[in-house]
Amino acid sequence: MLYSFDREFRVEYYETDKMGVVHNSVYFLYFEKGRTETMRHLGFPYNEIEQRGVIMPLVDQYCKYISPSYYDDVLTIRTFIDEMPCSKFNFRYDVFRKEENNKTTLIAQGYNSLAFVDMKTNRPMRPPEWMTKILTEKLGK
Amino acid sequence: MLYSFDREFRVEYYETDKMGVVHNSVYFLYFEKGRTETMRHLGFPYNEIEQRGVIMPLVDQYCKYISPSYYDDVLTIRTFIDEMPCSKFNFRYDVFRKEENNKTTLIAQGYNSLAFVDMKTNRPMRPPEWMTKILTEKLGK
Amino acid sequence: MLYSFDREFRVEYYETDKMGVVHNSVYFLYFEKGRTETMRHLGFPYNEIEQRGVIMPLVDQYCKYISPSYYDDVLTIRTFIDEMPCSKFNFRYDVFRKEENNKTTLIAQGYNSLAFVDMKTNRPMRPPEWMTKILTEKLGK
Amino acid sequence: MLYSFDREFRVEYYETDKMGVVHNSVYFLYFEKGRTETMRHLGFPYNEIEQRGVIMPLVDQYCKYISPSYYDDVLTIRTFIDEMPCSKFNFRYDVFRKEENNKTTLIAQGYNSLAFVDMKTNRPMRPPEWMTKILTEKLGK
Repeated sequence: MLYSFDREFRVEYYETDKMGVVHNSVYFLYFEKGRTETMRHLGFPYNEIEQRGVIMPLVDQYCKYISPSYYDDVLTIRTFIDEMPCSKFNFRYDVFRKEENNKTTLIAQGYNSLAFVDMKTNRPMRPPEWMTKILTEKLGK
Repeated sequence: MLYSFDREFRVEYYETDKMGVVHNSVYFLYFEKGRTETMRHLGFPYNEIEQRGVIMPLVDQYCKYISPSYYDDVLTIRTFIDEMPCSKFNFRYDVFRKEENNKTTLIAQGYNSLAFVDMKTNRPMRPPEWMTKILTEKLGK
Repeated sequence: MLYSFDREFRVEYYETDKMGVVHNSVYFLYFEKGRTETMRHLGFPYNEIEQRGVIMPLVDQYCKYISPSYYDDVLTIRTFIDEMPCSKFNFRYDVFRKEENNKTTLIAQGYNSLAFVDMKTNRPMRPPEWMTKILTEKLGK
Repeated sequence: MLYSFDREFRVEYYETDKMGVVHNSVYFLYFEKGRTETMRHLGFPYNEIEQRGVIMPLVDQYCKYISPSYYDDVLTIRTFIDEMPCSKFNFRYDVFRKEENNKTTLIAQGYNSLAFVDMKTNRPMRPPEWMTKILTEKLGK
């Protein structure tokens, strides 16, 4: 693992369903929340990537539901980068809840993979050099 | 009232919240569902409007919650056009459930107002002539 | 105006639509975000209200869209309480963006009204006494 | 493959994001749309399952994004059942668009796995007998 970044947030009422728990689709929004702040923290906010003419559409994603989470829970989304992006940028995620006894409950785990696409040509491309440069510096590779 | 159009749909699980009912924000998506099919039925699908260089952002909207609706309910969204669009296009909505006894339960009522904006100039504009022409024919004014 | 409370948040990618701006329905989620933290800050988190056997379903709500907001914008939702709750609890909202020049751009304004319902009887009720007590202390009435 | 069922639907505006395409999280809602109607068509609507005291929370799910889909596209979600449910009920999905030339464009593929949980005990259980009976009749096993 090269890097990880934590973002805390609170479960909103509108994220729950009639089962009384967070709806399964919402975890993929949490992944996005986590990835967004990780990229900002590394120095290349996604907004800037698009402004530089690159979009990063998802290739695939997966989520495993381990324990339910509830309205008003304070959750942490931990985003992992395990390797330098090559043709794809792979992210991995843990969603967990810190309990009062100082333990944590693992809620969900997942991953996704993003491509690099040149906005002008609409063709896949390699990671932009400026991003690789930052990653090499920050992730020490 | 010049025109009304009904669209039936079923409440999805992901539209409910932990109160066991459809979340309040979802009714505005129902309004969009209703308006979209009304415009298609009148002969100017919204997609075509954008393709002709006009976007129609919302100016305001309102919803009154009268009776809850539940997962798997079959609801009808009835979209009303009460007047020809001038600077704005006003829509009004009833959401109701047909009951087994041939009665209907009114779930929600609302309205919204949409502007016409020229995509190129990003400036407000009058309703496009081709749309007014269709509306005059269909709504008999 | 008796009370107001600010909550900052960032616009997520999944909150935008193909017009490139935050979708109209999302503002009602922002209202919920604002109201939730306001109630927590006043000392009666909504979760606790439900745990005490009261639910607060929406009666109606309105939003006026003044200026678009974009992906990655840092917005503030300001929640206002203008009066003590009687049969309903009325909230009012401003959504705005702080600009670099120290000015603010008003994005949207709205309001909603919530009822008090006894979970056991499913009947409307007056605001619970413990809540009125807190409000009287905090809002100085 | 034991069974498959098709459900057609139209992409709504609120399902798109600023990339101009359907947001990645929405495909998991499409999976739910497909699964729901498949279960209804087989004779055990999910609503009835819950009424009989069983909930079916997700264990995991995956989506592979093959080709983008756009506002107003008419898509088909095809739900596959490849095997009789044992401890889990596994579903597989194809999302595709029928093109004018009578060809189809594959948009996304995915799967998910659902557990059976006894509402009263909150414990995992085997598939209810009445469901297995229906499945054996319908899927010819």
